[in-house]
Amino acid sequence: MKQATTLNENLCDVKGILCWGAHVGIKSKRRDLAMIYSTVPCDVSAVFTRNLVVAEPVKVSRRQVQDGRAQAVVVNAGNANACTGEQGRQAAEAMVTTAAEALGIPRELVVIASTGVIGQRFPTERVLAGIRKNVAKLSNMRTASAFVANAILTTDTFPKEAAQRFSVGDKSALLAGVAKGSGMIHPDMGTMLAFICCDVAIEQSLLDETFRAAIDSSFNMITVDGDTSTNDMAMVMSNGLAGNLLLTSRDQPGYAEFREALFSVCTDLAKMIVSDGEGATKFIEYRVINAATEEVARRIVRVVSDSSLVKTAFYGRDPNWGRILAAAGRAGVQFDPDLVDLSIGAEEQLFQVARRGKPTNQDLEVVREVMRESHLRMVLNLNQGTAVATGWGSDLSEDYVQCNSHYTT
Amino acid sequence: MKQATTLNENLCDVKGILCWGAHVGIKSKRRDLAMIYSTVPCDVSAVFTRNLVVAEPVKVSRRQVQDGRAQAVVVNAGNANACTGEQGRQAAEAMVTTAAEALGIPRELVVIASTGVIGQRFPTERVLAGIRKNVAKLSNMRTASAFVANAILTTDTFPKEAAQRFSVGDKSALLAGVAKGSGMIHPDMGTMLAFICCDVAIEQSLLDETFRAAIDSSFNMITVDGDTSTNDMAMVMSNGLAGNLLLTSRDQPGYAEFREALFSVCTDLAKMIVSDGEGATKFIEYRVINAATEEVARRIVRVVSDSSLVKTAFYGRDPNWGRILAAAGRAGVQFDPDLVDLSIGAEEQLFQVARRGKPTNQDLEVVREVMRESHLRMVLNLNQGTAVATGWGSDLSEDYVQCNSHYTT
Repeated sequence: MKQATTLNENLCDVKGILCWGAHVGIKSKRRDLAMIYSTVPCDVSAVFTRNLVVAEPVKVSRRQVQDGRAQAVVVNAGNANACTGEQGRQAAEAMVTTAAEALGIPRELVVIASTGVIGQRFPTERVLAGIRKNVAKLSNMRTASAFVANAILTTDTFPKEAAQRFSVGDKSALLAGVAKGSGMIHPDMGTMLAFICCDVAIEQSLLDETFRAAIDSSFNMITVDGDTSTNDMAMVMSNGLAGNLLLTSRDQPGYAEFREALFSVCTDLAKMIVSDGEGATKFIEYRVINAATEEVARRIVRVVSDSSLVKTAFYGRDPNWGRILAAAGRAGVQFDPDLVDLSIGAEEQLFQVARRGKPTNQDLEVVREVMRESHLRMVLNLNQGTAVATGWGSDLSEDYVQCNSHYTT
Repeated sequence: MKQATTLNENLCDVKGILCWGAHVGIKSKRRDLAMIYSTVPCDVSAVFTRNLVVAEPVKVSRRQVQDGRAQAVVVNAGNANACTGEQGRQAAEAMVTTAAEALGIPRELVVIASTGVIGQRFPTERVLAGIRKNVAKLSNMRTASAFVANAILTTDTFPKEAAQRFSVGDKSALLAGVAKGSGMIHPDMGTMLAFICCDVAIEQSLLDETFRAAIDSSFNMITVDGDTSTNDMAMVMSNGLAGNLLLTSRDQPGYAEFREALFSVCTDLAKMIVSDGEGATKFIEYRVINAATEEVARRIVRVVSDSSLVKTAFYGRDPNWGRILAAAGRAGVQFDPDLVDLSIGAEEQLFQVARRGKPTNQDLEVVREVMRESHLRMVLNLNQGTAVATGWGSDLSEDYVQCNSHYTT
């Protein structure tokens, strides 16, 4: 089930990007502080958790990216700096100040993030000392990106990196990112974080618009358990060092390539997060096709992929089309159940189990056999339009319950 | 955990109500057909599933109750008559016609419901023959109500009955009901059904208004797994045989007593359904207090009680206030997390684990010990108003996963 990545390029291959991941003593042994730095200021776009309960670094970084500019990101794992009150607020501000001083850049260009336990006193001194000490190690060596990918993890079981090279006119540009998982695990870790760097020259408003669309098709279309964290954050920063003619509109040569690369990197990272969902034994792709609108298709994908009954059915190799239809029916969007076709199976072998809202004669034993695969697919054809949506989810196993219920014992 | 009921009175003690529950061969051995009949026509109020995918009996009964009048209810278990197409539609109409003829009442006064497997051919002949044969057995003997309570069950582990006597002026009236569980179990059973009878004389519009409010505080405030069924239905019918002066307004003597009885019976039935949730080891009461509005309080109760992370935490005796706060934060309603107090414990022993959004010094080992109890409570004080809401839910155990994933094997 777990997917490791072998990339030809990574963060460090993006022009002007230096980074490092170190152990500064928040966790007992593993790397727990990551820094990403661009030699020149970047245009940025960032999205944050919609949860009303937000960690201190989220409050700070929301303000820091408001001008659309940044040059460095500092991330710690092991303590979420959430529900920490005044002590946490001061710690977050100090992270910004310390990083700016150590890097010699304006305070306004520093973004921070934290992930880990909620409600515990933030180890401010360790983090600040770690920032001061590790600035000198910032590097564009291949291992530096791997260190970053590892330093942002909490209970993830593998680091998540993705990259894609693309052309803009006669220039070559690179988009590369790291992420960590969204499965909330004991005790309350499991923030979703993603940091993507690029060297293309692009107007901030176009970068922002494209990134939000990419997020809607990737990180917003995955679910492990439906809970959102206090610390979720995804960000893209681009420094223009690829030397291309500034991208300012959608119809400009090279924009489509950039967009494709951004969607691809976001989707790859999102799928890795699902693969690493806690207690997951299967990776499931959910497609809704021929919907009246994209919103209808997306809502149904989200509700179906988040249904405990659907997830346990996939875990138990049960082609339970009734549960899928019933979950779609409570998505709060309009469709005609009597027109719906449903197919279930593995990636290359799909079987139609319902047609026009009623069961087909498909031998379900055959479907059950194919459902032994670790990568499954479901296609729900609404037959009511042309819009489509795709999302990804994990199954629900006894392991999920075990890993989420026994942190005290 | 399981709650059985010992009632002094039940459906058969409601004046003019006769009923019966029989085995007609839909299930292999258990009773599977229930009939409730009033000797005179009743005013009724009914609410149905909001799922877009609805079973044939729901389509029929929605129409049947539109005039606010009914005299008989026929319910079968073992086949949901959902996703059955034209065959199912005709079967549902035939159930109405056959019951009306056998009972000698107008077709307009018959309501039907079904629960059981989705997408299987409906055994029309068995059901119709069963109706014809069992009409003669309608009875007001005590056992008849128990037969009804048993005949509507699917995978529930115990029958669910509740009753409350109340006074209207110098008259005594009775409200009694039966219900079945909402935990959707293999293969797609688990519809929530509730049928309540009363002998009070009350104007239909007032009955309807009061029932909808009662539903909002009871059946709409429970969750087992967040999924709604294609067949959910709750209904109250009242025949006026108590002989009281017709209740027509809220401020009339006796109305408050009726309202209290209806809320109480609905709440008792709802709590029994939660207690019988599949794989549940704990019954949890969720209270949100001092909210700005009742809607805010209710939304938070629903999202928190439906969170897999919160439910696994209760299962694992983990006073995990961070998960509760994070779930509240994604409820889509406004509140200030920095003002929130949270207490967790058993029914009589509550411990404040968070105050003003931050952890208290409460020794969590003490809370964990108390969480060994089977009945737990959580009180989230928003400190932002005066509205309150209460809801009930179950925990999430490995058993839930097992019982929902292995119907094929």
